[in-house]
Amino acid sequence: MPATAIRRRGRPFETRPQEARGAGRRAPPPTMPVMLDLTTIQGPLADLLARQLEEVTVIFERQLASELSAVNGLCMHIEQYRGKMLRPTLVMLSGLTAAGEPCDGAALTDKHRTVAAVVELIHMATLVHDDVLDEAEIRRRGATVNQLWGNEAAVMLGDYLISNSFHLCSTLGDPSINVALGEVTNTLCEGELAQLHHRDDYGLDEQTYYEIIRRKTASLIGECCRLGARLAGADRAMIRSLHEVGLALGVAFQIQDDLLDLIGRQEVVGKSLGKDLHKGKLTLPVIRHLTAASQHERGEALEMIVGGDAAALRSCLRESGAVDYTRSVAQRSVDEAKAQLAVLPASAARDLFEALAESVISRTH
Amino acid sequence: MPATAIRRRGRPFETRPQEARGAGRRAPPPTMPVMLDLTTIQGPLADLLARQLEEVTVIFERQLASELSAVNGLCMHIEQYRGKMLRPTLVMLSGLTAAGEPCDGAALTDKHRTVAAVVELIHMATLVHDDVLDEAEIRRRGATVNQLWGNEAAVMLGDYLISNSFHLCSTLGDPSINVALGEVTNTLCEGELAQLHHRDDYGLDEQTYYEIIRRKTASLIGECCRLGARLAGADRAMIRSLHEVGLALGVAFQIQDDLLDLIGRQEVVGKSLGKDLHKGKLTLPVIRHLTAASQHERGEALEMIVGGDAAALRSCLRESGAVDYTRSVAQRSVDEAKAQLAVLPASAARDLFEALAESVISRTH
Repeated sequence: MPATAIRRRGRPFETRPQEARGAGRRAPPPTMPVMLDLTTIQGPLADLLARQLEEVTVIFERQLASELSAVNGLCMHIEQYRGKMLRPTLVMLSGLTAAGEPCDGAALTDKHRTVAAVVELIHMATLVHDDVLDEAEIRRRGATVNQLWGNEAAVMLGDYLISNSFHLCSTLGDPSINVALGEVTNTLCEGELAQLHHRDDYGLDEQTYYEIIRRKTASLIGECCRLGARLAGADRAMIRSLHEVGLALGVAFQIQDDLLDLIGRQEVVGKSLGKDLHKGKLTLPVIRHLTAASQHERGEALEMIVGGDAAALRSCLRESGAVDYTRSVAQRSVDEAKAQLAVLPASAARDLFEALAESVISRTH
Repeated sequence: MPATAIRRRGRPFETRPQEARGAGRRAPPPTMPVMLDLTTIQGPLADLLARQLEEVTVIFERQLASELSAVNGLCMHIEQYRGKMLRPTLVMLSGLTAAGEPCDGAALTDKHRTVAAVVELIHMATLVHDDVLDEAEIRRRGATVNQLWGNEAAVMLGDYLISNSFHLCSTLGDPSINVALGEVTNTLCEGELAQLHHRDDYGLDEQTYYEIIRRKTASLIGECCRLGARLAGADRAMIRSLHEVGLALGVAFQIQDDLLDLIGRQEVVGKSLGKDLHKGKLTLPVIRHLTAASQHERGEALEMIVGGDAAALRSCLRESGAVDYTRSVAQRSVDEAKAQLAVLPASAARDLFEALAESVISRTH
């Protein structure tokens, strides 16, 4: 029985030829920074941000380059996940907002760009591991790592990304940044663990839900804003304000994400939907509906949840006002962020930040 | 349909009452430090190491204490994995060996103890994620996290451990240690990814196998020795020697681990065995056998591997001399470590280090 007759069960992490990492190949210019409608924004500030994100992309790719081609093949794949670059954008925009006019980018340092690459690495790691947890098959309209190469590769690739994020952060030579981001990733993992702990918990209340999303999502987004301001030399009060802006935006962002998972259209959102219900993860619309419902309605809704009847549940949530309630909570969080922004000095950066805050909940993907 | 009628699919991470983390509870004294026969070693140096490891245990537990009881429940469980504490022991023993006589522990600093807790956290994270990758059910005679609470909890708990290791490391305020350990964890993940890449690769050669185990195991063990020496104020040559000692020991350790997975007895080793073959992971005895065999024997062996006939394969490996060959390679690596130790100043610590080096391959678990 010759060795070649034995089929290898896994696909090795081969790089398709058209993806080959050519020597000296320039990083492709990222699509415009952020969320949704901001892609239509023009002008010098948008150009400045786009250039900064290009530099962040170069740092990101340089950090992940490995001596091992198998590792490079995998990293190449996840580069397509790097879509919105919300977190790097917030590092830059917080730095610009803290510095005020003229918003010429003079306040943005190498540290901003490195920190931006670090937070994107952390975020990527959570995406890759989330897809394992959620058994997701699609991410940004492409197959997930677990879908293509199995859970093992996805777990290890996530670890490689986390490790690289800390390594890159350490090269800054500023232990306080390592400590701050280490605390955030601890908190983030605690949020994910708490969420798992409450799987299939149909008595989950709103406060616990907020506690979970503050940890798993808002903590990192808040830290992006805090560090962006701190590295631009902002004073304590301004750093605190921008931290609060980030925390409030993070909460709104996650509420919107959870809402899209329930009522979004997969072809628009570009990733596997309905995962939350499938995995027994209760989110705000469902929690609200179950809390406000009569005993009879509650029983009906629980049957839909357990039976996986997403379409019927969607109708219920719309009719009972749970979807509107969820939108109003997200809007309130955005309003909080905008109120914090309003006390900062007026500037083009602050205006863009406000527009971004609004787009967090107006987005459809 | 009342909510209580719905069965929760997952077990929340509850702590059994007898495990409750009482306020002010002292850490239980760890069982004597290291591997195998060293447990029988008595005397002041063994006592000194035991006391150091007790302090490391306190730091380790303090670092993992969370505000969330669900997280504490999980961390409590993995404390039982902390058996041999090989890596913390090597940090201490390298510090003591570098400092030489009198081996009274004066050379061991708070940084040694913190670094020792950091490397143990890194090691624990790899154990938890390895068990997911290997679908292992048993670890140190107890159920694995994935077995008890599912893969999702194990993935996130591993992430929490990695995050805490970097956070704890950052509190040292010495970025060079963060950079060094970040490089090591990058390398470690690359080794694991390379191993996955070569799954079911029946043409895997010895050199590639060594390359993989150097990355996934020896790099961290080598760094434990290097940092132990560096933090004790050793000169460059001595730091390099102890680094080499650790790298050689790490290679021997992994070869022995792989051998035990093939020919050990589960009740002695205390963890799921035969995983490597099951997961298509070729290790030295098999690689040697396939390389040295005639075409006919090779075909037979491949049939046993693919058919999962571990007992027949074991006989083959013993008869062909592949097991003896593997033992001789591990012995050579231990001899290399001992040769490096021999050039260092004689001391009780160096003697214990030599005994530990030998025990790495004489162990049966």
